[in-house]
Amino acid sequence: MSIDIPETNFPRVVIIGGGFGGIQAAKKLKNKEVQVIMIDRHNYHTFQPLLYQVATGGLEPDSIAHPLRKIFKNQKNFIFRVAEARFIDGEKKTIITNIGDIHYDYLIIATGSNSNFFGMKDIEEHAMPMKTIPEALDMRSLVLQNFESALLTDSLSEQEAFMNFVVIGGGPTGVETAGALAELKNHVLPHDYPELDIRRMQINLIEGGPRLLGAMSEQASEKSENFLKRMGVNIRTNERVLGYDGEKVELGSGKALESKVVIWSAGVRGETLPGINKDVVVGGNRFKVNTFNQIEGYDDIFAIGDVAAMITEDFPRGHPGVAPAAMQQGVLVAKNIVKKINDIPMEPFKYFDKGSMATVGRNRAVVDLGFIRFQGMFAWFVWMFVHLMTLVGFRNRVVVFVNWVWSYFSYDRGTRLIIRRFEKQADKKLDPIEV
Amino acid sequence: MSIDIPETNFPRVVIIGGGFGGIQAAKKLKNKEVQVIMIDRHNYHTFQPLLYQVATGGLEPDSIAHPLRKIFKNQKNFIFRVAEARFIDGEKKTIITNIGDIHYDYLIIATGSNSNFFGMKDIEEHAMPMKTIPEALDMRSLVLQNFESALLTDSLSEQEAFMNFVVIGGGPTGVETAGALAELKNHVLPHDYPELDIRRMQINLIEGGPRLLGAMSEQASEKSENFLKRMGVNIRTNERVLGYDGEKVELGSGKALESKVVIWSAGVRGETLPGINKDVVVGGNRFKVNTFNQIEGYDDIFAIGDVAAMITEDFPRGHPGVAPAAMQQGVLVAKNIVKKINDIPMEPFKYFDKGSMATVGRNRAVVDLGFIRFQGMFAWFVWMFVHLMTLVGFRNRVVVFVNWVWSYFSYDRGTRLIIRRFEKQADKKLDPIEV
Repeated sequence: MSIDIPETNFPRVVIIGGGFGGIQAAKKLKNKEVQVIMIDRHNYHTFQPLLYQVATGGLEPDSIAHPLRKIFKNQKNFIFRVAEARFIDGEKKTIITNIGDIHYDYLIIATGSNSNFFGMKDIEEHAMPMKTIPEALDMRSLVLQNFESALLTDSLSEQEAFMNFVVIGGGPTGVETAGALAELKNHVLPHDYPELDIRRMQINLIEGGPRLLGAMSEQASEKSENFLKRMGVNIRTNERVLGYDGEKVELGSGKALESKVVIWSAGVRGETLPGINKDVVVGGNRFKVNTFNQIEGYDDIFAIGDVAAMITEDFPRGHPGVAPAAMQQGVLVAKNIVKKINDIPMEPFKYFDKGSMATVGRNRAVVDLGFIRFQGMFAWFVWMFVHLMTLVGFRNRVVVFVNWVWSYFSYDRGTRLIIRRFEKQADKKLDPIEV
Repeated sequence: MSIDIPETNFPRVVIIGGGFGGIQAAKKLKNKEVQVIMIDRHNYHTFQPLLYQVATGGLEPDSIAHPLRKIFKNQKNFIFRVAEARFIDGEKKTIITNIGDIHYDYLIIATGSNSNFFGMKDIEEHAMPMKTIPEALDMRSLVLQNFESALLTDSLSEQEAFMNFVVIGGGPTGVETAGALAELKNHVLPHDYPELDIRRMQINLIEGGPRLLGAMSEQASEKSENFLKRMGVNIRTNERVLGYDGEKVELGSGKALESKVVIWSAGVRGETLPGINKDVVVGGNRFKVNTFNQIEGYDDIFAIGDVAAMITEDFPRGHPGVAPAAMQQGVLVAKNIVKKINDIPMEPFKYFDKGSMATVGRNRAVVDLGFIRFQGMFAWFVWMFVHLMTLVGFRNRVVVFVNWVWSYFSYDRGTRLIIRRFEKQADKKLDPIEV
């Protein structure tokens, strides 16, 4: 069953995914002689770099989401549908979705990535991922529910399990989440829960490699470790996680950590789609693409961003899974498709590394810009400025800015709300409340 | 099983419900020689008067909610638990809750009210209530999902059913919701859905009585009707609703309206609790109280706000179910409990009517302050000012203010996001998307 989308005389470019890459590709096709169709599971774009602030009560979910229709409201050749792609039929040039089939002339797969549990089913079942807004909201609820639950038990060891947070993965998300939890511990929770001894709250950050922020400079790793330690985070590097059953995290070193909240930020895998030749799915579950982002063996199907692996001499494992790489590929693929339509040779991708940064807490961030590296308060201001400017939508920028200024001066987090209870591993002994 | 709450030498006052009344009662007991325990199903206070703005995408849910623990973080004699009261045992002076039993010396029931469907099961099943934040979020999702669904059908009549909104109940909530939907229709949706003919969207406001805003002056009713008509709302007064099966609203006049979104704001009933003598539950499912808010026949149990009916000569049907009445009763009950403990005679309640108001849209509101009545732009500014000042929490005030200023100048609504799909009556033909 084909879905009802107006036909035009122009070639049709279908973009799957409204993330950083997909949006740039669609924007770049404005006023070009193509019909642009975007589909996404959500009707909004998610600004993933700030999800951890939603999860820790610093920002409201709506502040980091932006309606996709609104972004493109002035783009006449753009059509949007809320839909989930299920299968690509490269022969028939058709995408099978939950709302029907969509024909394409050119296809851009910009589906991004999802949490990679490396096959560990028990972790997938019990740990909290943090890749979508509903997941971040579930984590926010769970963190707060656990403190409420800690109040209901006499057992000190059970209380400590409720207050023991384990963050797995020492990349930017893990570092930022651990830092935000430490700020909750130091500034917010003692006021909210005077009956609990919040000093007993633990934040454990576990990293398999030898240092945090492995993709950044050693200087950044060292500084972020110092910052986190000073804020009270226990860091365990060179430590593998073997399993988590909802109660206990088993570590490669033989130790075990009793914990009711385990946050998983140890890896991602591309959100590939069935139908494409499986042989071109490489490490990290990504589509192998050439320098024009064409999937190997396909002339009219492009993959960009986290779901693409463009293996070159400089990037033997593909480009980093960050917003700038996806955005640059989105822009270039859009240009190349127009060139292809007009029989002009396409341009190969060249990554412009904008540097990388991570924030640990107030006045504490680390920034690597090529050989320029700095840490501390100025880095923190740079981090905030860059993130504010990258947020989609002026209103979101204003609201996030107001929230940050407010938090800075009040040492407070505004949104400690359990809007919907998270039931996955809520205390089973409790009779659930109907809300 | 009794729950673990520290005992003190002071009498214990338990407050069930953290709404307008409960908060005032607890605040007034600060620094008094009592132990205050508040329980609520949620860990936050909901500012109900602005729920309709969350439902229509004007405000973020967090902006109108405030963590209860934060409100009382400096009140030493205050203890909070997330819990649901299930039964009151007046003999044993005990509340049975989902987390265990709680003993009280004095009990304040401030549970408020919930939607009253007057026994119409089909309406309860299919219509959208709007009394809690999750309900408002569900309505927001459903409104947007319906426009997405309208795009997927060829049938004009089905498309119109998706775009036909029926608001039942012409009180302030109904009037404000209808007005907000009309603004979406006039300013926002045509940009978001250029493929749909939004002029075909209908907003029907149905009221059983002869006029809208029946509790306000005739002048306010007339003006609000004029405002709504000019904005394109179809008003049907003196019209009863007989049923709604998820597809069709049956009216007393014999007509039927095909609609996929029916919003129910036609009545509330007190959230009484079992255990209390049933004979004292009067009209509107409220506890009959004396002028000290004591439930008839109980010396140590007080009911305030929407769940209380204080029948007097001036108020033969009890006081209006508005925030000021609940707040004033909360303050007085707290004072009276302290008096009672010290064997000082209690003071009877005297309602101070602060007037009433409702907003219809930008520059359009109606205000009754005793004999002073005004409508239009100035009324609208008064409405905004009063609501901003009544919001709990300075941060919430700032964020709501920024949002309102933004909407005013941009004619836009920020938060058109389907964060969690509402599945109750989503188009059954669609394969659901896992989000």
